[in-house]
Amino acid sequence: MLAVTVEITVRLLPIPESARLILASFPSIRDAGNAVTRLIARGIIPAGLEFMDRMAIEAAEAYAHCGYPTDAEALLLSELDGCPAEVEQQIGTTSAVFTACNARELRVARDEAERLLLWKGRKSAFPAVGRISPDYYCMDGTIPRRRLADVLERIEELSREYQLPVANVFHAGDGNLHPLILFDANHPGELERTLAMGSRILRLCIEVGGAITGEHGVGVEKINEMCVQFTEAELRQFHALKAAFDPPGLMNPGKAVPTLQRCAEFGAMHVHQGKEPFPDLERF
Amino acid sequence: MLAVTVEITVRLLPIPESARLILASFPSIRDAGNAVTRLIARGIIPAGLEFMDRMAIEAAEAYAHCGYPTDAEALLLSELDGCPAEVEQQIGTTSAVFTACNARELRVARDEAERLLLWKGRKSAFPAVGRISPDYYCMDGTIPRRRLADVLERIEELSREYQLPVANVFHAGDGNLHPLILFDANHPGELERTLAMGSRILRLCIEVGGAITGEHGVGVEKINEMCVQFTEAELRQFHALKAAFDPPGLMNPGKAVPTLQRCAEFGAMHVHQGKEPFPDLERF
Repeated sequence: MLAVTVEITVRLLPIPESARLILASFPSIRDAGNAVTRLIARGIIPAGLEFMDRMAIEAAEAYAHCGYPTDAEALLLSELDGCPAEVEQQIGTTSAVFTACNARELRVARDEAERLLLWKGRKSAFPAVGRISPDYYCMDGTIPRRRLADVLERIEELSREYQLPVANVFHAGDGNLHPLILFDANHPGELERTLAMGSRILRLCIEVGGAITGEHGVGVEKINEMCVQFTEAELRQFHALKAAFDPPGLMNPGKAVPTLQRCAEFGAMHVHQGKEPFPDLERF
Repeated sequence: MLAVTVEITVRLLPIPESARLILASFPSIRDAGNAVTRLIARGIIPAGLEFMDRMAIEAAEAYAHCGYPTDAEALLLSELDGCPAEVEQQIGTTSAVFTACNARELRVARDEAERLLLWKGRKSAFPAVGRISPDYYCMDGTIPRRRLADVLERIEELSREYQLPVANVFHAGDGNLHPLILFDANHPGELERTLAMGSRILRLCIEVGGAITGEHGVGVEKINEMCVQFTEAELRQFHALKAAFDPPGLMNPGKAVPTLQRCAEFGAMHVHQGKEPFPDLERF
């Protein structure tokens, strides 16, 4: 958008001395969401803190046979790393927090083989979900971690409203959601319904104080939602900034930052369908 | 420069469970510089890693009576914090690195009272130097940590060339130098010589791949050295960026980024004095 990269300097971090993984299953999404919030509030900064809901757990287990508890509504995988004594202490704190948040099963990987097996399920969750649905649409939004449970419940409501299943598997530790909307592009209208639901999820992220991007960019896919996340003044500022680096507009033209004309049309489109422009905005 | 701050969100970090301080004295500035380089290369990230040279040590000891070894050419104070077991391990690694770099005395603060006393000397170093000189000029530049020893030796050479004593006390862990040039503004010409020497130190930071600022800004004081650190194209870009946020130029006008006209005059001034514009640039 603003530059051509000609050189990259990397900062190397030492490989941690030890790493241990803890798995916890929960009877509800809300319990797992609360566990994330409370763990972070305790000052624990895990190397990984991954969330999977029932659909993601079932798909991953069927594919990777990693021993996940398939009766759980939600699962957290938390990896702690550092010097062995510190990791030991943090495993204790993490277990206590998870237990206080109604964790049903609590399992610390006994050895490196079990640690890698438990990770295998998470790492293959996306292709595993691909096996149970002809298509899926992967979202990428970010929310304040304390709103995790609220947002996951709202996504469940949207799933019912749009009649499209959703699998949730994401980086809970940094509030970065990846809802996967399952659909079949061969069914007329289903792709359109999926895209509309995806936009609702992104606007939900904005509502609760988050953003429409996590670890991926805006590109052209989420350019309309930029009209919701930012004010007219902010969008004007983005364009001025872009012009300062690229006066003739040669770098990635038309991406990431919508024109104000486009935002006006996007707002009008929603009104035309007989809805408020952004119906979710006032609800939280 | 670019905005008016109307709101600040702070990120709170938990207070570390434990903190231990280690003091090491060295027979030469080069040994202490090497110790910093090697410690960082070992992957240790101390909470504090402070460097003091002989003049700073003597001034601080005379003022704070904190038990510093006054026969040393350089002193490092390294604080490790975290969980007690990790801190213990890192104290061991730090001691080994310092010993391998010819540390003469190695002292781990026995208790909180000694830790605070050893810090007291470092923290009062600036006012302590103020007691031994009518005026001092405090620089703020940054260099790659591996060049610490080279740069400190060059500063010693500059001290002899300009006949102005220099006390060094700074944050070695992040390569942020704070040479204090001691002078007396009542002696005719001494202020001018001090400013000229300060500029040489900043240009030395640039030569070795560093920057003219560390934890403080450019303002008007270091605006000429911006002409050395950045190319004409970069300076033009800074001005374009500033204009994108502040078209009428109301915010901090004339600060931080020099006009190209000013840079031309700064270069000409050096040529006029019969020197190359920036004599240090080729030496390293």
